[in-house]
Amino acid sequence: MNYNVGVIAGDGIGPEIVSEARKVLDAIGAKFGHTFTYDEILMGGCSIDATGVPLTDDAIAHAKAADAVLMGSIGGNTATSPWYKLEPSLRPEAGLLKLRKALNLFANLRPAYLYEELKEACPLRDDIIGDGFDMMIMRELTGGLYFGERKTEEVDGVMTATDTLTYNENEIRRIAKRGFDIAMKRRRKVTSVDKANVLDSSRLWRKIVEEVAKDYPEVTYEHMLVDNCAMQLVKDPKQFDVILTENMFGDILSDEASMVTGSIGMLSSASLNDTKFGLYEPSGGSAPDIAGKGIANPIATILSAAMMLRYSFDLDKEADAIENAVKKVLKAGYRTIDIMPQEEAKKATVTQVGTARMGDLIVENL
Amino acid sequence: MNYNVGVIAGDGIGPEIVSEARKVLDAIGAKFGHTFTYDEILMGGCSIDATGVPLTDDAIAHAKAADAVLMGSIGGNTATSPWYKLEPSLRPEAGLLKLRKALNLFANLRPAYLYEELKEACPLRDDIIGDGFDMMIMRELTGGLYFGERKTEEVDGVMTATDTLTYNENEIRRIAKRGFDIAMKRRRKVTSVDKANVLDSSRLWRKIVEEVAKDYPEVTYEHMLVDNCAMQLVKDPKQFDVILTENMFGDILSDEASMVTGSIGMLSSASLNDTKFGLYEPSGGSAPDIAGKGIANPIATILSAAMMLRYSFDLDKEADAIENAVKKVLKAGYRTIDIMPQEEAKKATVTQVGTARMGDLIVENL
Ligand SMILES: CC(C)[C@H](C(=O)O)[C@@H](O)C(=O)O
Ligand SMILES: CC(C)[C@H](C(=O)O)[C@@H](O)C(=O)O
Repeated sequence: MNYNVGVIAGDGIGPEIVSEARKVLDAIGAKFGHTFTYDEILMGGCSIDATGVPLTDDAIAHAKAADAVLMGSIGGNTATSPWYKLEPSLRPEAGLLKLRKALNLFANLRPAYLYEELKEACPLRDDIIGDGFDMMIMRELTGGLYFGERKTEEVDGVMTATDTLTYNENEIRRIAKRGFDIAMKRRRKVTSVDKANVLDSSRLWRKIVEEVAKDYPEVTYEHMLVDNCAMQLVKDPKQFDVILTENMFGDILSDEASMVTGSIGMLSSASLNDTKFGLYEPSGGSAPDIAGKGIANPIATILSAAMMLRYSFDLDKEADAIENAVKKVLKAGYRTIDIMPQEEAKKATVTQVGTARMGDLIVENL
Repeated sequence: MNYNVGVIAGDGIGPEIVSEARKVLDAIGAKFGHTFTYDEILMGGCSIDATGVPLTDDAIAHAKAADAVLMGSIGGNTATSPWYKLEPSLRPEAGLLKLRKALNLFANLRPAYLYEELKEACPLRDDIIGDGFDMMIMRELTGGLYFGERKTEEVDGVMTATDTLTYNENEIRRIAKRGFDIAMKRRRKVTSVDKANVLDSSRLWRKIVEEVAKDYPEVTYEHMLVDNCAMQLVKDPKQFDVILTENMFGDILSDEASMVTGSIGMLSSASLNDTKFGLYEPSGGSAPDIAGKGIANPIATILSAAMMLRYSFDLDKEADAIENAVKKVLKAGYRTIDIMPQEEAKKATVTQVGTARMGDLIVENL
């Protein structure tokens, strides 16, 4: 079959890592008899440079027309890049937020997974992390503080800035269902995270999650306050299966959780709407400091492509093939610099490779 | 001299741990020729039980009249306690929020400190934590989402809840100054944490912090996005000296940072206004599951009392005496259950003691 993949290479290391993912997709196509065509879409800093805005209406139309979108990363160094002298709505990140909203990508899945082969990269003590840390964050992505009204104005001569955090029951219900659905395919535990001792939006969140939970009697669920959750992710991350939470809390907790695994360069993510459509991207950022050096880890993007095959195209066999190839390459001892062991002694047993070589190795192992 | 200390014992382990801190204060009084008188103030669940509300106006008046307030902890099990069936403004936590606002306690100092003696409790790997992790979080405490307007209402038949995040330049300026002031007494580095790529309030935050920074040329400062900060606290916590941030981000990051030390039962905190007045409390919660068992760690509360002596009463010598006594007791191998080593082998070299015995030991070592 033919699949039309929208490709947002983006900024920083984006183009390098996306090109490895395309290499892998092409190899999958050859092996399993599919064709992937790529529609290159500008977003972020590169779009600002070319068009003056981080995302044009035409770009949105192309993304909508695609069967799914594969993204690298967007944005640059906020201190030095001229993009950050522009007004907020014209900066690179504004493009991503606009796209999420335009495509109604309300369900953001962020796995945090400890690779047995990369255990030495995990910053937690061995007796705490043990083995088999494997959780999923289900983050609401089109509501809350990210999309509420905001304004900056003088009030009685004093500069005052306001953001608004709003959720309605329908927004909460649809993401809660997604959270419980995915828990059913995993270890059947949902931890819903909020700040219900302070926020009205969190109290509504808790109420609706409880209603949804009734439809999933096989799933154990609990409520946890966000401050406690930030502690528990360090103290005992293995207690979690699915964390279900709102947009801003999910932003913070998913980054914390991915760093707990020690290998954020390995972690993919999916942003889904109510159809089969999705946007797939690595959890890490655009890493402008190492862009163009050929050393970035392409695995998170390659695994994001695998997620795309699985969730948007129902190509499970093909997705398995990619995931297994990644594991084989790790087992064979190949590492990009970000996942090299810390200790000198262990470095001798692995081989450090660059971005393109890592892509090639994964293709060879498909 | 005579000092009038308002005492909020509160709920859960609150009364047990506060009573040890009073024991230590009395011993300090005897040794250094001060008298501490205690004005017991009801707040939280115990106040609900006695008066129907978590904080009465009379209680606020007593707190205001005190020279400083020492607090244990408030609240209970949110799933089982009848307090959490009440409407939000009548729950235990609402008392604390009301008190913070009434006393204008805008500056919340939360140290996160790795005790050399307790290094084995730290969940991070030895090569990451090394030694000497010692940071301070300066959290804004009377603004932002905690105190914005909120409402829950039906909009076109759909339940909708809204919270508001507002900061004005004066609120930001006064907390930023506090952050830079404290950095001047420490390692002279400020990391201001925000989400300026999304929020208007964060962009104003960043602008005002930059203005304030100009008055502190000796302090190195940087801006960090909150999601990145949640990662960095796990990856490389030693990079931080002072984290300066708004209310909700500070709530989340300070809990994460204190868990990184592995001994939240050791960590004190201070909430200050523009005068010498302050409210001092342990960083940990009311721990209803262990309340009344005599096993809670009183050290965080005892160290909070030391902070009170230092910041509100200018009794540095006396504060030093308490802090040194705590170190001596730890060196001598005494531990409450929460700071016992994980490994059996190491357990043989320390002595487990309960709440009251720990208080006595600290008194003996003053
Ligand atoms: C780039 C930024 C707007 C974005 C977010 O905060 O959602 C990023 O941090 C993410 O988590 O995808
Ligand atoms: C009890 C709660 C309202 C409070 C807060 O969120 O500020 C607590 O978590 C804290 O950090 O002091």
